[in-house]
Amino acid sequence: MLCARPHPSTVDAHVCPAHEGLDGILDVVVESTRRGDGDDPLDLYRAQLPLPAAPRALPAGYLRATPLLPAPRLAAALGVGELLIKDESRNPTGSLKDRSSALAVELAVYGGFTDVACASTGNAASSLAGACAVAGLTARIFVPVGTPAGKLAQLAAFGARVMLVRGSYDDAYYLCEDAAKEFGWYDRNCAVNPYLMEGKKTCGLELADELGDAPADWVSVAVGDGCTVAAIGKGLAEGGHGTTTRLLAVQPAGAAPIVDAFAAGRERIEPVRAHTVADSVSVGRPRNAVKALRAVRASGGAFRSVDDAAILDAVRLLGEHAGVFAEPGAAAGIAAIRQARADGLIGPHDRVVHVVTGSGLKTASAAPAYPEIEPTLDAVRAAA
Amino acid sequence: MLCARPHPSTVDAHVCPAHEGLDGILDVVVESTRRGDGDDPLDLYRAQLPLPAAPRALPAGYLRATPLLPAPRLAAALGVGELLIKDESRNPTGSLKDRSSALAVELAVYGGFTDVACASTGNAASSLAGACAVAGLTARIFVPVGTPAGKLAQLAAFGARVMLVRGSYDDAYYLCEDAAKEFGWYDRNCAVNPYLMEGKKTCGLELADELGDAPADWVSVAVGDGCTVAAIGKGLAEGGHGTTTRLLAVQPAGAAPIVDAFAAGRERIEPVRAHTVADSVSVGRPRNAVKALRAVRASGGAFRSVDDAAILDAVRLLGEHAGVFAEPGAAAGIAAIRQARADGLIGPHDRVVHVVTGSGLKTASAAPAYPEIEPTLDAVRAAA
Ligand SMILES: Cc1ncc(COP(=O)(O)O)c(C=O)c1O
Ligand SMILES: Cc1ncc(COP(=O)(O)O)c(C=O)c1O
Repeated sequence: MLCARPHPSTVDAHVCPAHEGLDGILDVVVESTRRGDGDDPLDLYRAQLPLPAAPRALPAGYLRATPLLPAPRLAAALGVGELLIKDESRNPTGSLKDRSSALAVELAVYGGFTDVACASTGNAASSLAGACAVAGLTARIFVPVGTPAGKLAQLAAFGARVMLVRGSYDDAYYLCEDAAKEFGWYDRNCAVNPYLMEGKKTCGLELADELGDAPADWVSVAVGDGCTVAAIGKGLAEGGHGTTTRLLAVQPAGAAPIVDAFAAGRERIEPVRAHTVADSVSVGRPRNAVKALRAVRASGGAFRSVDDAAILDAVRLLGEHAGVFAEPGAAAGIAAIRQARADGLIGPHDRVVHVVTGSGLKTASAAPAYPEIEPTLDAVRAAA
Repeated sequence: MLCARPHPSTVDAHVCPAHEGLDGILDVVVESTRRGDGDDPLDLYRAQLPLPAAPRALPAGYLRATPLLPAPRLAAALGVGELLIKDESRNPTGSLKDRSSALAVELAVYGGFTDVACASTGNAASSLAGACAVAGLTARIFVPVGTPAGKLAQLAAFGARVMLVRGSYDDAYYLCEDAAKEFGWYDRNCAVNPYLMEGKKTCGLELADELGDAPADWVSVAVGDGCTVAAIGKGLAEGGHGTTTRLLAVQPAGAAPIVDAFAAGRERIEPVRAHTVADSVSVGRPRNAVKALRAVRASGGAFRSVDDAAILDAVRLLGEHAGVFAEPGAAAGIAAIRQARADGLIGPHDRVVHVVTGSGLKTASAAPAYPEIEPTLDAVRAAA
């Protein structure tokens, strides 16, 4: 918190009036940790979420716990004691953002909204569009020109109203915020809506539940705006793993303003011109930097930057050694683990979780150049 | 069964020596229906599967029960009493084929194989490649030239050894079968390996468990080779829903040889030159036609063909009304439900399940043409 002023809870997003602008987004404080039933995080962790009373707008099971998969071959390749993949690409639209979008749609329906707006590098948009299609709301999407075709195709399939903004993600973001106010749309932007972090928090809660008495030493997560890593930290803490588990936060070298602030020991961000192969975390002016910095610091963790070559190598490592196809942003943490292992921050016996935040299918556009063969055994012999 | 000759069970695939060729693939008969624990179908239904004793090659949770989601908005659009989506796109590589590939990899590891071969329109290949990457086996993949980029990119990410065969899926299939014999690779082809149907059967077993005392009137599934619909029928029957639930089997009009045989009341297939937008079921010479025909007939069900325009419309309906992004083949069943509802085969109060067999992200290549706008509210007003 930048200030300790309490705020009454409403469905609409809230920024502290005394701290408007980038950093004043509220913290949500919950009072109970009673567990609900079933496999849907919105039911299971209902007591810890800003959810209206049932009935729900989305069917139970739309959101489900994602698997936590041991990856011994990848652990060996990275030289860590144990590596577990939290595979968020199994969410309904293929990214961790589904956790927040589902919560946003519940709140929008409860609040009587018919339209929900979102600016996005792609995943938040497609997850919002998917959940809106289930609930019968209109998704108003602002994405920068150049968003990958897979993410746009998803938006089209879900019938979203999409605007390609001539400019950066940052331009799309400000336009969306203004438009939501102007046209009375529910605002699904993590930068102004504190409830969305609560949705993502369920990933950390799940991790704490799954690991139980054997907490991870490290959890690695990719950072764009900073909401995700802060939310996972919050979930781990609410799940009782706040003092056992350190966050390894990673940004691409071409979009690393929070890494720089962390290294310099400041909370003020110097915006950069983002340029990286990891489109989902190509954010030059992050909106949840303070929360991210504080969460990582509170965990005793670290911020790292990794270059594009290391990121693409990490995609390959994840696919070939763990059978998980991640988008570049969602693989960056593997490169950070490797780097932190090499310089000794992560030890050879550490238990490490990497969160795969989004599916590689969304960014797969170019077909690889495989050999074409005639249908003969001799051709197989020559090619195999 | 074409004959009642019993065969001893081994890890290697088996075709009845008295009925070699397309139709002689064996039936697997299991003797117990005791339920195991947890959410992984290979554990839960172990007593009904040809699995070696533990330990397993793939981690528990790699495969999980897929959600069965009520889709009331889509039910209304189709005019049926209830519509439920069995969302197989949530499997580890995004298709129902993961169920068979996981089983194949367990059997291959148990049998001491280092390489597993598969011919595929794409999904079986990428699912095999993913499971092989987890287990540390080499996947040998034969796909026809023209397989969608998304599926090839997945193969590349998993480090599969891929050959693009100049010819049709049928050519790729025969080449793969010959090569597996020649080079001693485990053969993951549903057409020769009867165990693979057992993997897919778990989808039907799950459906029966999830629906319990309220069985579906219809389950709609897309058909290529015919293995999937036969396997789902077998699972429903083993789960006790064999006499309550009818199978609605659908092929694209441009690749409908089993539909033709069903209509003519024969089991002999007249191969066709397949041509359809639904690449995953573009099969001109199906290899499990007899099993498919018998399963559909035994259920009291029907075969339907739907044209490409209806299939693309079904993709849109699924996305906009149910928030599920399906590949064309995986949406075809929605077009068949609509057709069968229009001609009265499906009644207005029927409870219908549609199986989404694969993710639309795999075939999304072209970006839709969304309006590009300047970052101003006036531009939003004009575009919204
Ligand atoms: C795949 C993926 N990983 C990580 C992130 C980072 O999340 P945040 O912007 O909340 O830091 C995003 C955000 O778009 C994402 O799409
Ligand atoms: C998405 C999808 N649906 C349906 C099928 C049909 O399965 P089968 O060939 O077993 O009939 C396939 C097979 O490739 C598929 O990939």
